[in-house]
Amino acid sequence: MKAEILATGDELRSGALVDTNSAYIAAKLEETGIRITRHTCVGDDLEALAELFQEAGQRVEIVIVTGGLGPTQDDLSRDAAARAVGEKLNLDQKSLAEIEAFFSSRQKSMPPANRRQAMFPESAEVLSNPVGTAPGFTLKIEQAVFFFLPGVPPEMKKMLAEQVLPRIRRMVRDDSFYRTENITTFGIGESALEEKVVEFYTIFPEIKLGFRAHFPEVQLKLYLKGSSEAAINRQRDRAVAWFQEKLGHKIVSLAGKSLPEVIGDLLIKRHLTLAVAESCTGGLIADWLTNRPGSSEYFLMSAVTYANSAKTEILDVPAATIEKHGAVSEETAAAMAAGARKKSGADWALATSGIAGPDGGTPEKPVGTICIGLAGPDGVESRRYRFPFRQRHYNKKLFAAQALNRLRLKLVYNS
Amino acid sequence: MKAEILATGDELRSGALVDTNSAYIAAKLEETGIRITRHTCVGDDLEALAELFQEAGQRVEIVIVTGGLGPTQDDLSRDAAARAVGEKLNLDQKSLAEIEAFFSSRQKSMPPANRRQAMFPESAEVLSNPVGTAPGFTLKIEQAVFFFLPGVPPEMKKMLAEQVLPRIRRMVRDDSFYRTENITTFGIGESALEEKVVEFYTIFPEIKLGFRAHFPEVQLKLYLKGSSEAAINRQRDRAVAWFQEKLGHKIVSLAGKSLPEVIGDLLIKRHLTLAVAESCTGGLIADWLTNRPGSSEYFLMSAVTYANSAKTEILDVPAATIEKHGAVSEETAAAMAAGARKKSGADWALATSGIAGPDGGTPEKPVGTICIGLAGPDGVESRRYRFPFRQRHYNKKLFAAQALNRLRLKLVYNS
Repeated sequence: MKAEILATGDELRSGALVDTNSAYIAAKLEETGIRITRHTCVGDDLEALAELFQEAGQRVEIVIVTGGLGPTQDDLSRDAAARAVGEKLNLDQKSLAEIEAFFSSRQKSMPPANRRQAMFPESAEVLSNPVGTAPGFTLKIEQAVFFFLPGVPPEMKKMLAEQVLPRIRRMVRDDSFYRTENITTFGIGESALEEKVVEFYTIFPEIKLGFRAHFPEVQLKLYLKGSSEAAINRQRDRAVAWFQEKLGHKIVSLAGKSLPEVIGDLLIKRHLTLAVAESCTGGLIADWLTNRPGSSEYFLMSAVTYANSAKTEILDVPAATIEKHGAVSEETAAAMAAGARKKSGADWALATSGIAGPDGGTPEKPVGTICIGLAGPDGVESRRYRFPFRQRHYNKKLFAAQALNRLRLKLVYNS
Repeated sequence: MKAEILATGDELRSGALVDTNSAYIAAKLEETGIRITRHTCVGDDLEALAELFQEAGQRVEIVIVTGGLGPTQDDLSRDAAARAVGEKLNLDQKSLAEIEAFFSSRQKSMPPANRRQAMFPESAEVLSNPVGTAPGFTLKIEQAVFFFLPGVPPEMKKMLAEQVLPRIRRMVRDDSFYRTENITTFGIGESALEEKVVEFYTIFPEIKLGFRAHFPEVQLKLYLKGSSEAAINRQRDRAVAWFQEKLGHKIVSLAGKSLPEVIGDLLIKRHLTLAVAESCTGGLIADWLTNRPGSSEYFLMSAVTYANSAKTEILDVPAATIEKHGAVSEETAAAMAAGARKKSGADWALATSGIAGPDGGTPEKPVGTICIGLAGPDGVESRRYRFPFRQRHYNKKLFAAQALNRLRLKLVYNS
């Protein structure tokens, strides 16, 4: 079964805003076995919308539309759908009551303009919106079933999952069970990863495999389909065992989690605390770790010691160490880690010192060089890595991930 | 004159990748007075591509296509264009030589597959690609002039600016001069800003005005058009003076720069150094500041003291201050700033302590509360702010921007 995705709105048409909804919807529909053939975006133009609805309705069986359900005169999806099917708009009392309730729950009265949001083409079935004022609706235009959803991403996502996807599954009379599993990897590029697991396609022809780069991590996506939950679980277990055999320590998470999330889980589970000393990563490790609510349980501090004097003053790195080996050296990184651990009283301390570029590289220590220090209950170690030159922004991310991965390997494999 | 934008590729069609090219191109074309009527995305499918080219070629005068110019069998834009106009593909010797030169400049020989990239429909004019292996091309399909560009964003952007936009300006026989000016504001939401400057439309009918939210900053975009550079400059000066009168200190930059960039400029210009002490912002201020190459010139350190013990140990915040007033208090923020300035020897020190949420709020200090300390040559000050509840991720950004803005107001206006 084929589907198209339509995005509406002048901000998208004129390029003021990037359309992220269409990619999200495409990925979700493809997971259920629907083939997306086209995405289209047009502006807030009644004529253009109605024409597009008719066109798309002739090409495929399912169409998902986002946007144009707000209360303003520019919100034209309802009117355009009515025009495309030659119907009038009717007031839906139940939706009106829900919109009024939404406002009164916020101690406000409904502005008159919002009444528009309860008007639907006569043949439409309303899709209620539990998290906003814009209800959606579904109706047939030409040969296709259309689903109209709000453009606000959290509202769209919730309604897609709870109201649209179940209806689509019934439409395709598909009793199969579906699940998508995400495996996070680090330390291997997307193309190298694809090559390394190329046999997967012949060994597991029943599982669709995808790759998604979240630099510097790469996610493997397994699209599973089976006659029961148990059948999916069996498929999954076999595939996961195969990937573990193939990729070993490069697998960061079998639940699609990021490195900072995995580190957080490990520290919480083992009741451990962490301190960080950052030079080249400039606070990025701390920022990542503290994006998680409750991170104060395990994250004590990061000393972002950019100046050498700060390394000495805050972390007690001996000036002689920096003098002799340089700020970017195994010795300085080790002293930073030891100092951060001592000052904070943390169980573990991680330190970074490197050259993110574009300037500051030397033949001996080119841009892309990073030294990572790790101090723990059994002492301090330090390693140097060299990555190919990349933009500063990418180097910071790569360095921060490499440091967190160092701690992960130590905690999980003691390696 | 009307234009459409087409994006091609299975990663985009299936939702594995978000299409950011189309919004970029739309914004650039709209700046030159072309009206974008539609964006479309299809996958790597010869039939679907050729049909789409013919459709779009009947609807508008200009079409920009991205993607499908690579060396693999999935890269079908050349073939589909040839099919749409009923032509064969010819080898272009000059393009072939350029592709070979690209590889030999990297000490590699050209793989045979890349020969495909020098094949174009007979009537096409080649658009050379100075930064990659995929040349583009332009030709007429139906009534429209098509421009085919690579999907890799930096290559697309360079070719759009240097080869496509000048050709389009000649097509519309437009001798006007164009410029877009960006004004960065902070401290006023997008809708409030729109309301505040609503008279602009009547006072300056010749200037198109746009708004673009880069949370928590909002950019004003001025689309200027004039018969000469001097005419544009006059328009710009009048408009800028009007905005300065209207918005005052809320204008962060007349050059579209972000708060961290503006702070960097100010510190460099005045030969000043900065230290930061972060609690609720968790390293984000340091990360922003160090994204700029050469930031080590003015940024000395950030002590991300998440645990109270780290505030005491690293920044000498008296335990009694935290005990008496709490970690989130004007007193603690002031002590953090004073400690960071003393420890680092910086000219200025900025400190944040607040509640990013979702937990940790109290009736007296709800989520969204932040205390900002600022220590400088004339002493230490501290202020408390309270923002409406937002997600943790947004609160961190808002807090970090508010802190940098505090320093900006002090340095620029001594307020």
